[in-house]
Amino acid sequence: MITVEEAQARVVATFKPIDTELEDLTHLSGRTAAEDIRAAADNPPMPISTVDGYAVRRADGETTRKIVGRAAPGHPYRGSVGNGEAVRIVIGGVLPEGADAIVFHEEASDESGDLHFSNAAVHPEHIRPAGLDFKAGSVLVPAGKRITARDMALLAAGGVAQAKVRRRPRVAIASVGDELSAPGDQRRPGDIYAATGYGLSAMIASWGGAPCDFGILEDNAQEIATIADADADLVVALGGNSVGNTDLIARALGSTDFSMETWKVAYRPGRPLLFGQLGGTPMLGFPGNPASALVCALLFIRPSLDVMLGTQQSTCSLPQRFKCGCHAMSARLTTELPATDERKTYVRARLAMQGGEVWAEPYPVLEYPMLSVLAKADALVVLPPNAPAAKAGDMVEIIPLDGY
Amino acid sequence: MITVEEAQARVVATFKPIDTELEDLTHLSGRTAAEDIRAAADNPPMPISTVDGYAVRRADGETTRKIVGRAAPGHPYRGSVGNGEAVRIVIGGVLPEGADAIVFHEEASDESGDLHFSNAAVHPEHIRPAGLDFKAGSVLVPAGKRITARDMALLAAGGVAQAKVRRRPRVAIASVGDELSAPGDQRRPGDIYAATGYGLSAMIASWGGAPCDFGILEDNAQEIATIADADADLVVALGGNSVGNTDLIARALGSTDFSMETWKVAYRPGRPLLFGQLGGTPMLGFPGNPASALVCALLFIRPSLDVMLGTQQSTCSLPQRFKCGCHAMSARLTTELPATDERKTYVRARLAMQGGEVWAEPYPVLEYPMLSVLAKADALVVLPPNAPAAKAGDMVEIIPLDGY
Repeated sequence: MITVEEAQARVVATFKPIDTELEDLTHLSGRTAAEDIRAAADNPPMPISTVDGYAVRRADGETTRKIVGRAAPGHPYRGSVGNGEAVRIVIGGVLPEGADAIVFHEEASDESGDLHFSNAAVHPEHIRPAGLDFKAGSVLVPAGKRITARDMALLAAGGVAQAKVRRRPRVAIASVGDELSAPGDQRRPGDIYAATGYGLSAMIASWGGAPCDFGILEDNAQEIATIADADADLVVALGGNSVGNTDLIARALGSTDFSMETWKVAYRPGRPLLFGQLGGTPMLGFPGNPASALVCALLFIRPSLDVMLGTQQSTCSLPQRFKCGCHAMSARLTTELPATDERKTYVRARLAMQGGEVWAEPYPVLEYPMLSVLAKADALVVLPPNAPAAKAGDMVEIIPLDGY
Repeated sequence: MITVEEAQARVVATFKPIDTELEDLTHLSGRTAAEDIRAAADNPPMPISTVDGYAVRRADGETTRKIVGRAAPGHPYRGSVGNGEAVRIVIGGVLPEGADAIVFHEEASDESGDLHFSNAAVHPEHIRPAGLDFKAGSVLVPAGKRITARDMALLAAGGVAQAKVRRRPRVAIASVGDELSAPGDQRRPGDIYAATGYGLSAMIASWGGAPCDFGILEDNAQEIATIADADADLVVALGGNSVGNTDLIARALGSTDFSMETWKVAYRPGRPLLFGQLGGTPMLGFPGNPASALVCALLFIRPSLDVMLGTQQSTCSLPQRFKCGCHAMSARLTTELPATDERKTYVRARLAMQGGEVWAEPYPVLEYPMLSVLAKADALVVLPPNAPAAKAGDMVEIIPLDGY
């Protein structure tokens, strides 16, 4: 039996960051930056007035100036502001050359082209200097960051029209089992609907991968052999008697460049984990129970995608940073939980905020295999192996399930 | 001046749940259920053995049985198990008729078709009864829930091949301003890149809407008039001198069925909010500063989309439930914040978990207009109007920005 961490480390070690592609700005949302994305230009590009008023030279002591022009967004004043001169400026207008202060519109009077104001009305602080937000060449999105909606606006403001991102890792999903029917099909007595693939595809997409569903394969060598045709960065085989049955799979894929191991991993819920290499492509085999398989996906597919996407590890350090993009955080238990054996245990729970703290209320352990309970849960409570019974109020590690 | 809540209420009141469409299961992820989605069948469909062993009748006192057949996933035993009989059963196999208990494989011996075991090895608890996870007709996804990856697996397990969801609300976005250039274009001196639309499109998509970017419009009646062509459920005009300039917009759109109000909303950062009706379609006008506009989107577009999608209000009650899908939660301040005036104030902050509590570390108020700061922030700290100065350690309401 190996620990979850050891199994994760072995799986993750077989992946490396995958190839990159240049994408147009409009397609960058949700993609992962393959290199630091830098601003093409200062923002703002020139000093900008943040108020309505008049641009003047501060050193010019006079309180009467001649209005020589106008500056509005998109319509800069082309000349220079000299002593005794002022330029009417609208919010967002570029500060004309020569000017270094703004007189508030409300604190000045314009009498047939002559501006009158008191010196107190000179406000250099209402000029937003060029590059205040960021300078050309500064990093807007660091390598390994998944680009958010706010990053999209930031990249646009920096004049970034294209950027290099990681290709979406392709994950082929095969559901193996003679007992499986597709939802909507007439099923034979006792058959169950293939469910895991639908959940897994959506999870993989939400984690930045490109799922490709192979559909249902029967539990025999001939059907399983078709997995070898997958053009993917990772192959996932779900359920079936044969998944974990090394002999059958080896026979099915034996003619290809294939190797496989079956690991007993010290966690629950969970069955043996299959890990192989299929013509150079890593392959994972998960248990047939959808609720168990989706927890396996969280533990083994998500970190593998992170490696392929070159995701910054700083965004998912456990458990300090609170981020839904992060793999874990902590919470207090509402009730006691029994001691664990040698297996790390993932308990489904609801979360609630109370007095600024996050509280986790576990579902009964007997409800493990139930998909209806997994769908309702907000988080997994993580209990370490060989841990004593946990008391109500104890702080525990949790993995939030928000977003998938 | 009206309060944020009053402005939100007025905006939201103009929307109602939009039309529905029937979608195939593979396209349901991220969509919002328009009605309760119910299971087409029990899960499991029949009683299932959760262990390897032999299916027997419990009432039959004998400890020796004749093995009459085999039941494996996809290969049920067609007959009935009588007294003195046993059926070899594989994990996931359907319990044959007549049987009501499982004898563990490890606790029995099979001698040329005769099964020997002790009575203690009879385990009725290892039978998962039909419908244990859910029964046919039970609600798998309630109306108004956004369908998660886990829900996808649940729906598939329930044999749901299609479901009725809300159409994605179409949001047309027009960026108005003579000073705007598109990222990648050669820009005129002093021009800035149109940025808000890129961020807003990604936000709207993440909230379940279908953004449609109109691009950049010049700040004149002729260009602004093209907004009237938008085939949308909501029109958003961004920035420009004229946005908020009722006269110009009224002139531009006057030939159409158009009405508009400009509201001074008591919040910062924020400028006047424009709210109109354009041929029956609600229209919002946001300030030109991208950082302010994106906060406006959170405050006014998100709840509008929620109404159109019929999103369950229970998933976003403030601030009890901790959910990233939720609009708010609470945290403790790491430092003091000044008293507020009559305006509700949204302060950007970083979040960190410490001792099970969420802590918010505000960015300096002067950094408000900066998109680079908004992009880095984890949350907005919400300070009510006319609030005294907040001390370090005080509990405050926050709006997490995770996911967009």
